[in-house]
Amino acid sequence: MKNFKPYFAVIFTSTLTENTKGYSEMATEMENLAKEQKGYLGIDSARSDASTAHSSGVGITVSYWESLDAIKNWKANSKHLFAQQKGRDQWYNWYNVRICKVEKEYEFELG
Amino acid sequence: MKNFKPYFAVIFTSTLTENTKGYSEMATEMENLAKEQKGYLGIDSARSDASTAHSSGVGITVSYWESLDAIKNWKANSKHLFAQQKGRDQWYNWYNVRICKVEKEYEFELG
Repeated sequence: MKNFKPYFAVIFTSTLTENTKGYSEMATEMENLAKEQKGYLGIDSARSDASTAHSSGVGITVSYWESLDAIKNWKANSKHLFAQQKGRDQWYNWYNVRICKVEKEYEFELG
Repeated sequence: MKNFKPYFAVIFTSTLTENTKGYSEMATEMENLAKEQKGYLGIDSARSDASTAHSSGVGITVSYWESLDAIKNWKANSKHLFAQQKGRDQWYNWYNVRICKVEKEYEFELG
């Protein structure tokens, strides 16, 4: 934990409508676009099957950024704005966005 | 965003080994146990199929807490400690834990 430099995370949690045509392609496109942005650090994404016992099909995408400004810029990116609007119009039943400061981190890897 | 009270999130990202016997039951047990803890606010969990194009089987669980102390207590809970050890011994190939402060939040719901 020495010299740990805080950074920022956007936790995006969502459930989809039944009309997911084009969603997967757009998700991939947005991930690739995010990677090109200034201050981008990384992204993790998972969505459970709606049918599994453990979940009702919730998706979680967490992206990591150097600063709040980097997050602001990414949110205002014109292609991303278009995708956000399309998401509200067609793909998402519900979503929640949380802007967080990562204060501590640790990792385990199988030896 | 008026009167928004910051709270805390634990972002737990992981990949599993092939020996997942007992994992799903333990995950459910730990979710139920977390809900009983002081300062618990909520939990979201998703794991993609290892086979899908969009993911390599990464799982993301985010739990939400009122304070860093609540997170500390949950981490040190004896049943949870046992599950953590079992996770390192058998279920997890890799995991990462991030402790975050949620500074801002917004939500969308289909009208």
